[in-house]
Amino acid sequence: MLIVPEALIADLVSAQDAYDAVAATFAAMARDQAYNFPVVREALGEGRQYGFKSGLDRAGGMLGVKAGGYFPGNMARGITNHQSTVYLFDPDSGRPTAMVGGNLLTALRTAAASALSIDRLARREARVLGMVGAGHQAGFQLRAAARVRQWDRVIGWNLHPEMLPKLAEVAAELGLPFEAVPLERMAEADAIITITSSPAASLMAGHVRAGTHLACMGTDTKGKQEVETALVAKARLFTDEVAQSVTIGEAQHAMAAGLVAAGDITPLGAVLTGADAGRRSAEEITLFDGTGVGLQDLAVAAVAVARARERGLGIEVAL
Amino acid sequence: MLIVPEALIADLVSAQDAYDAVAATFAAMARDQAYNFPVVREALGEGRQYGFKSGLDRAGGMLGVKAGGYFPGNMARGITNHQSTVYLFDPDSGRPTAMVGGNLLTALRTAAASALSIDRLARREARVLGMVGAGHQAGFQLRAAARVRQWDRVIGWNLHPEMLPKLAEVAAELGLPFEAVPLERMAEADAIITITSSPAASLMAGHVRAGTHLACMGTDTKGKQEVETALVAKARLFTDEVAQSVTIGEAQHAMAAGLVAAGDITPLGAVLTGADAGRRSAEEITLFDGTGVGLQDLAVAAVAVARARERGLGIEVAL
Repeated sequence: MLIVPEALIADLVSAQDAYDAVAATFAAMARDQAYNFPVVREALGEGRQYGFKSGLDRAGGMLGVKAGGYFPGNMARGITNHQSTVYLFDPDSGRPTAMVGGNLLTALRTAAASALSIDRLARREARVLGMVGAGHQAGFQLRAAARVRQWDRVIGWNLHPEMLPKLAEVAAELGLPFEAVPLERMAEADAIITITSSPAASLMAGHVRAGTHLACMGTDTKGKQEVETALVAKARLFTDEVAQSVTIGEAQHAMAAGLVAAGDITPLGAVLTGADAGRRSAEEITLFDGTGVGLQDLAVAAVAVARARERGLGIEVAL
Repeated sequence: MLIVPEALIADLVSAQDAYDAVAATFAAMARDQAYNFPVVREALGEGRQYGFKSGLDRAGGMLGVKAGGYFPGNMARGITNHQSTVYLFDPDSGRPTAMVGGNLLTALRTAAASALSIDRLARREARVLGMVGAGHQAGFQLRAAARVRQWDRVIGWNLHPEMLPKLAEVAAELGLPFEAVPLERMAEADAIITITSSPAASLMAGHVRAGTHLACMGTDTKGKQEVETALVAKARLFTDEVAQSVTIGEAQHAMAAGLVAAGDITPLGAVLTGADAGRRSAEEITLFDGTGVGLQDLAVAAVAVARARERGLGIEVAL
């Protein structure tokens, strides 16, 4: 089996690789060739979270699990609070084939899903990108979004405004003007990415104009919320996995309030395979509820392994 | 992190090590210092099964997952059908600390649980051991049982009698007379281990005399059954984990038939900590429903890692 350490990932997996891998596995899910196993997610005490996301992709020949979690005491020790590792197995024999550092991959696969939704659901002529959230993940989101549309400018909001200059730096790197704005001015955006870990809605229905595409990427557990339920209720809804969307995703609150039903939500994979036509009009608000599924992790980890093998990188061990 | 390949396990982890490790984690479970996370178990098609058993043991400082499954096509390729690997993480930081070959460990931890139940629940003067099942696991079970009582003889039954001579060889190694018997003669036994993968009961209430201890180790999934529900109903019940016992363990059928309730089943850990006194009389039939929990896997894997570190074995890699 091959071990691909975290330090190699940046050199092995590009944003384009992640985009292609996530698109392929979402399409396989829509064709019933791939499915995610139930998610295990446990509180370990003292704010620590741990869990496992796993799945099987018959089309991609992938079986595996991402083990990972959140350890708030890590930063004080100089290591990242989010820790994850992806383990891949041969779906025919069950033997381990690879262990892959999963921290950067998680950021890449999350940004890829968001960009994929923008590419397929935002209006062609979208020119203003809104960013709600300016943490570690926001930079990855912005970079991925820059690859799928020609933006004129980026506007950003964050609960802690002192974090916005870092996101402005990413925009500058991409050659995009950046402006910090109040939430009300998100109405200028053609597409908005929300990437916060908020327990209550920041973005309200009144902050979003007709025809906007929303990629809500922050809500991945019970109790988190980024956008007002009234906004969810008026949008046409898409997601990575419907079962997660209505339980741990952004749709959980609108679902609980009886404003939407699981049948109202379309898997993005169905848009990729052509089973769903996607955006229906220039006025429609589209909302992608990106909850994050194990198959995304397996897909990008498999790319890392393939690239490492091509280039003779990683550590081969006999288990 | 340390990689401990499968080939090293036999030399690193003894039956006594497994016994001590499983006892410690069962006791930690009973003290609410350790718990198993929900089990993931999925059918992959063509008879293949895959899943994850995981948990946290605060007392033992263990966090981890066993990934493994059953791949019936393996034998034809010269590899074992059961494939598993244990991954350990630092419970404080979430960083991977070890990857350990899990095939032999699974056999050792299962046999250790059975032996532990015999040691704590069989009558002191038990002299005849009954074995129902003679597959790969049966030899491990017999060896472990031989460590906790002075048996005069072993009697064995298997659906396919041609497999019994292999079990007889293990008995011979241990210096124990072995006799193949019909199920009716299991009434001669003071303790009986059932270790089959049967979909229907083999051992009936009429096959078991008063005062016998039963270690039912084969039923670990819905639909398997080793002993008649009437026998489960008349026995005093113990298990590794009550939640598993009533859903995927031997007690599932008696539970479904309304013959037992979860409250009738005592965790073996409670006997180890002294919270439960165990066997109450020489006439009582005791039954340990060994379903197999993730914490057992973590416990024996942690022993393998500790021994490997002491002896400078295994492969150290930076992830």
